[in-house]
Amino acid sequence: MTAPTGVPADPQSPDAGPRRRAGRPAAAVLGQDGITTAALQLIGRSGYDGFTMAALARTLNVAPSALYNHVSSKRDVLVLVQDHLTSFVDVAGFETGPWEQAVRDWAWSYRDVFSKHTPLIPVIAVLPVTDAPKTLAMYEAVSAGFGRAGFPQERIIPAIVALESFIFGSAYDVTAPADIFDSGSMAAATPHFTSAVRRLAENVDEKPADVAFSLGLEALLAGLGALRSA
Amino acid sequence: MTAPTGVPADPQSPDAGPRRRAGRPAAAVLGQDGITTAALQLIGRSGYDGFTMAALARTLNVAPSALYNHVSSKRDVLVLVQDHLTSFVDVAGFETGPWEQAVRDWAWSYRDVFSKHTPLIPVIAVLPVTDAPKTLAMYEAVSAGFGRAGFPQERIIPAIVALESFIFGSAYDVTAPADIFDSGSMAAATPHFTSAVRRLAENVDEKPADVAFSLGLEALLAGLGALRSA
Repeated sequence: MTAPTGVPADPQSPDAGPRRRAGRPAAAVLGQDGITTAALQLIGRSGYDGFTMAALARTLNVAPSALYNHVSSKRDVLVLVQDHLTSFVDVAGFETGPWEQAVRDWAWSYRDVFSKHTPLIPVIAVLPVTDAPKTLAMYEAVSAGFGRAGFPQERIIPAIVALESFIFGSAYDVTAPADIFDSGSMAAATPHFTSAVRRLAENVDEKPADVAFSLGLEALLAGLGALRSA
Repeated sequence: MTAPTGVPADPQSPDAGPRRRAGRPAAAVLGQDGITTAALQLIGRSGYDGFTMAALARTLNVAPSALYNHVSSKRDVLVLVQDHLTSFVDVAGFETGPWEQAVRDWAWSYRDVFSKHTPLIPVIAVLPVTDAPKTLAMYEAVSAGFGRAGFPQERIIPAIVALESFIFGSAYDVTAPADIFDSGSMAAATPHFTSAVRRLAENVDEKPADVAFSLGLEALLAGLGALRSA
């Protein structure tokens, strides 16, 4: 699953595009969905570094003060974007499939969505769920799946948090440069590390980030799965 | 300003810049160690939000141009700080102890160091090791320990990366607010999640972040440990 670049179109809604002409009803786009759509457009175009409230107001063709009538800060907008992206994380397996495969589908899709939006990770990692209804819906689906799979109730949240911590850290790793482990002029001083890096490169064709994610996820599945009573 | 630990004083140096008061050997602090020490002072006082190159130059009592003679960007300084902090991560167990305990000591100390410096996580997660000699030394110690513990050479780096991803994500979790999983007015709509959160609170006295970290780390140890041939 690839990360979405915008919310699904609603043909009845006024266009939230960046070059909307004067005279069209700007106020109509300033619901949460319109702000989210415009923020994703702006982020897609300028990245997170170019994402400011002033630029978002320009994208929406409204005065900054109009924007601040709906959201109180840049962080509020990032919460909207994060919550929207979470709706693309795959939780379907928790309804139907075996627990292991449901966790795999969830974890890989979760990593892939946020690896394209790593500046949101510091936001989501400490975000109270009450601020993010789609994120809360995801937790409900995952918690229900863990319960059905036989997890002790008091271990469900820690197990989900442990998996999420691994997923968030792994999302950064997707964006690491190819030469991250090139020891360069220090190679002679670091023989064990340099040898291990070389052996990985010689023996494994998959992307390094995928190899590490698969290895860690399967280890977590085996280790956490042992907690199940069912 | 604390005593400089870097390069020797050179009162003739043109680096000193116009802000320096007569008689104070500011150039002396502008080695990497002096810049790192001043950056940590500034971050301790103002947090990462207040950390700018201009503020760092003021802390060092030099002109910004003098600072830019030694580091080319704020990111360069964050790399220095990150590399310095990595020297506080405990790798001693990889020399002497059993692998499981060595990984536990390493992982808990690594999480604890960076949970107090989470704005560095996006830097460290994608940092080429050649830029960071103390970080490279850490990887050498850990790689050697994994090799001695019987890991297949081509699995050492992916296993370390998987553990680090979990550690970085968990460092954020340490900073999460206590009410992060309070479903509030959505409790009725999320019964499985809300029940799991309540059962955790009722049955576990430790800090939630420590419970999740311990659970995930022990699962990773069990799962990754199975790769060992020794």
